Amino acid sequence: MSKQSNHEELIYFLHRMAAYEQALSLMEWDAHTMGSKNSLKTRTNAIEVLTSEIYNILTSPETEELLEANDPTTLPAPEKSALLHLQTHTKRLRNIPFKDYQAYKTQAAKAASAWSDARKKNDFSVFRPQFDKLVAWQHEFANMQGYEEHPYDAILANHHYKMTVKAMDQLFSNMKDTIHPLMERIKHSEHRVKTGFQYYTIPDDQQAFIANDILKEIGFNFNSGRLDHSYQPFTLTVQENDIRIGLPYIEENIQTGLTNLFREGGHALFEQGRSALLRSATSTSEIEAHKILWSELIGKSQVFWDAYYERFQHQAPKAFADVSSDEFYEGINAAKSSIIRKEANELTQPLHLQVRYELEKGIMEGKVPTRDLPGLWAEKVQKATGLTVPHDNAGILQEHHWATAQFGYSAAKAFAYVQAASWYEQMNDAMDTFNAAGAHEWLCKYVYDDEQFPSPGQYDGRAFTRYLENKYTSIYRI
Amino acid sequence: MSKQSNHEELIYFLHRMAAYEQALSLMEWDAHTMGSKNSLKTRTNAIEVLTSEIYNILTSPETEELLEANDPTTLPAPEKSALLHLQTHTKRLRNIPFKDYQAYKTQAAKAASAWSDARKKNDFSVFRPQFDKLVAWQHEFANMQGYEEHPYDAILANHHYKMTVKAMDQLFSNMKDTIHPLMERIKHSEHRVKTGFQYYTIPDDQQAFIANDILKEIGFNFNSGRLDHSYQPFTLTVQENDIRIGLPYIEENIQTGLTNLFREGGHALFEQGRSALLRSATSTSEIEAHKILWSELIGKSQVFWDAYYERFQHQAPKAFADVSSDEFYEGINAAKSSIIRKEANELTQPLHLQVRYELEKGIMEGKVPTRDLPGLWAEKVQKATGLTVPHDNAGILQEHHWATAQFGYSAAKAFAYVQAASWYEQMNDAMDTFNAAGAHEWLCKYVYDDEQFPSPGQYDGRAFTRYLENKYTSIYRI
Repeated sequence: MSKQSNHEELIYFLHRMAAYEQALSLMEWDAHTMGSKNSLKTRTNAIEVLTSEIYNILTSPETEELLEANDPTTLPAPEKSALLHLQTHTKRLRNIPFKDYQAYKTQAAKAASAWSDARKKNDFSVFRPQFDKLVAWQHEFANMQGYEEHPYDAILANHHYKMTVKAMDQLFSNMKDTIHPLMERIKHSEHRVKTGFQYYTIPDDQQAFIANDILKEIGFNFNSGRLDHSYQPFTLTVQENDIRIGLPYIEENIQTGLTNLFREGGHALFEQGRSALLRSATSTSEIEAHKILWSELIGKSQVFWDAYYERFQHQAPKAFADVSSDEFYEGINAAKSSIIRKEANELTQPLHLQVRYELEKGIMEGKVPTRDLPGLWAEKVQKATGLTVPHDNAGILQEHHWATAQFGYSAAKAFAYVQAASWYEQMNDAMDTFNAAGAHEWLCKYVYDDEQFPSPGQYDGRAFTRYLENKYTSIYRI
Repeated sequence: MSKQSNHEELIYFLHRMAAYEQALSLMEWDAHTMGSKNSLKTRTNAIEVLTSEIYNILTSPETEELLEANDPTTLPAPEKSALLHLQTHTKRLRNIPFKDYQAYKTQAAKAASAWSDARKKNDFSVFRPQFDKLVAWQHEFANMQGYEEHPYDAILANHHYKMTVKAMDQLFSNMKDTIHPLMERIKHSEHRVKTGFQYYTIPDDQQAFIANDILKEIGFNFNSGRLDHSYQPFTLTVQENDIRIGLPYIEENIQTGLTNLFREGGHALFEQGRSALLRSATSTSEIEAHKILWSELIGKSQVFWDAYYERFQHQAPKAFADVSSDEFYEGINAAKSSIIRKEANELTQPLHLQVRYELEKGIMEGKVPTRDLPGLWAEKVQKATGLTVPHDNAGILQEHHWATAQFGYSAAKAFAYVQAASWYEQMNDAMDTFNAAGAHEWLCKYVYDDEQFPSPGQYDGRAFTRYLENKYTSIYRI
């Protein structure tokens, strides 16, 4: 086969994968919106069938041959990224027989249900027998995939193929070394940040107007996507030119509403900005990084709110007439500790993530028996946040990640903070006056189709800690 | 491979095909409803990719082996039908290389565009060069597929695998022998049928109420489907438990509105009633027959309107207060001649279909040069309807079927009238008092999953002509 036809076949292969992804996305969208009451079972079957088809295509000898016949170094940006991802991803897939993968998914569904039961009883021991089985699977997968230094490396690679224990240990250690002293200094600050205004109720139609306006402001293309009202916030890519955002109306907390809006908006910009050829080549940490970049670093930046606040205030005069732009900026960035990860902001999230990361690492090393987990969890959270875990539901049972087969998610999310801060620093350096439109443009040019797959080892994490230092010392005058 | 596992594999294969069909249907639905402005091109690509995947699966040696390994005579009803269909269908598909099929579709797209241009100029000769190429393809396909008696048989088999020139000639001849004398007698009838009330405007919300109510009345399950407002009437099967009907509001002709409603409702009942395993095993004539059964034979029957009219009248008292049930029934069945097929009703539609059928047959025999078509068309329509074709747009250019690769459609639709009338006669015989709910039940039991694939040769067409005789002699007192 000639080089030319190898390349054409690769392009067709990428379009082929994108077609399956499009079908699956549409089924998911339909499940959330238009699907009839009785449609669930048949749709679930169809999703299972198409997922198997994708697995079979990806692991076939023809695909292996095609992917090996192309040399990434000779390809332009999006194809290069896609090929690099696929070469790694299919190699990993071929190591896990489909029947094992299916059996694991069945087990994960059981575990998720046991987790719900355990939540009702506020008791980790109800969940533990099922969790033990998932842990056994993690060890099994690590052996199937193989690893060089650490069994957890094999699991981390599901989220980013270059993520390793060695690199993540370093990143977490750097973050902790900055965040702990910073929290201490904030605690002793004399400056009081106003936050009360966040709890004014903004009528639904005004929320909808603001959501549309901010999405336009940050560059969301409404000809290639739509915004709908939904019960949970989500972004769903039907295809590159059809990205659908769902946002709930927020009862009484504008900060939550804005965080949702910028997070989904950031995800949507990423999906609109990158090439369709990369549809199936995205890591967890990459998507998380874009969400964080927009929901935290840009969506809560002084420079965004300096420019936008007047329009915002005008939309909800009752709530914000007496709140200055600076007060608003400080309020939405108020530092707070919480034993619930989801209630923590960018300052203390990484500490929560580190707790989960270290426990998973211990499990993968065989050093942490699951019966010791609740105690270890409470101990580590106490050290990280200074707060006492009162019971399992506010501790080890607070999230579903361990029940839904997402080992390694916390590390990926922590790396996403580091990645987002690095981009943010670079784009600030590149622009005379930082602004949202310029940010999207910069990302389109340098990040979305990037073939380099930056790995945790390439970062020292200092961009993130510098960012935290700058922001919080200024807000708290410390 | 054991018999047991052959059977299991067949079931999985049918579910696999259904999953692809579901994906494609959803993309079509999305194109009509939620898809963003810029989504067209990528969706079109995805549809092409998935269509190719289906072609490749259906024509693969593994599929051939699987379908041959199962014996239809040993299978229960829906699987038997599905297997019979697939065995025939895949054999035909394997005779046409995919690249030829694709080239034909590209040619058909060009022809459709030329047809639009020709319509603008009201001139068949503008369309003819493109049409000639499609005709050449028909000959090509007939040779690829092979045939025993007549080259047109190979084309007719695309719509129903047992449809032949021999059988259709007989059916058309019987229909004509009844319809012509019947029309003559109606022309000389003294009885005047009121039709003016059809043109009262019914407000949109009342139309929507009536549509919902009639759909419920005839057995449409709203937990397994939905009704939406749309610009064109359609029925789309996302899957067996999710059938979506779209209906436009009708400005000033209740007869058109009711015909749309019963036609789509009938299609939807068929889709809700049959097994999911038959998803990819449906002939054009089968669907048309269900549409006709409900839109004409049941939806315009005296027995339906005797039972329903009071409720209907109550919904739109302004329009129907002074119209009796009998007057209404007669009005919606008024006999009328038209040179436009779509404006003709059950009484004269078959004559229009026969004109197209005979011209296609002549083309396939190589006896009709396309330059003679406009003249032949006008001549045959004059004979069939007594009306003079004033120009190409009201004649040979009136429909897109010849421009969109639907050779054989007219024959399939004519056979559908015969099939529908045969069912109608059988269900009337089976019920003490005919009613819509009973009709749906009867169809579920005897027709939807039927493995017999009744062929045109099994019918003499007399059920249809008997039905016409009974109905119109009674309405026109002749």
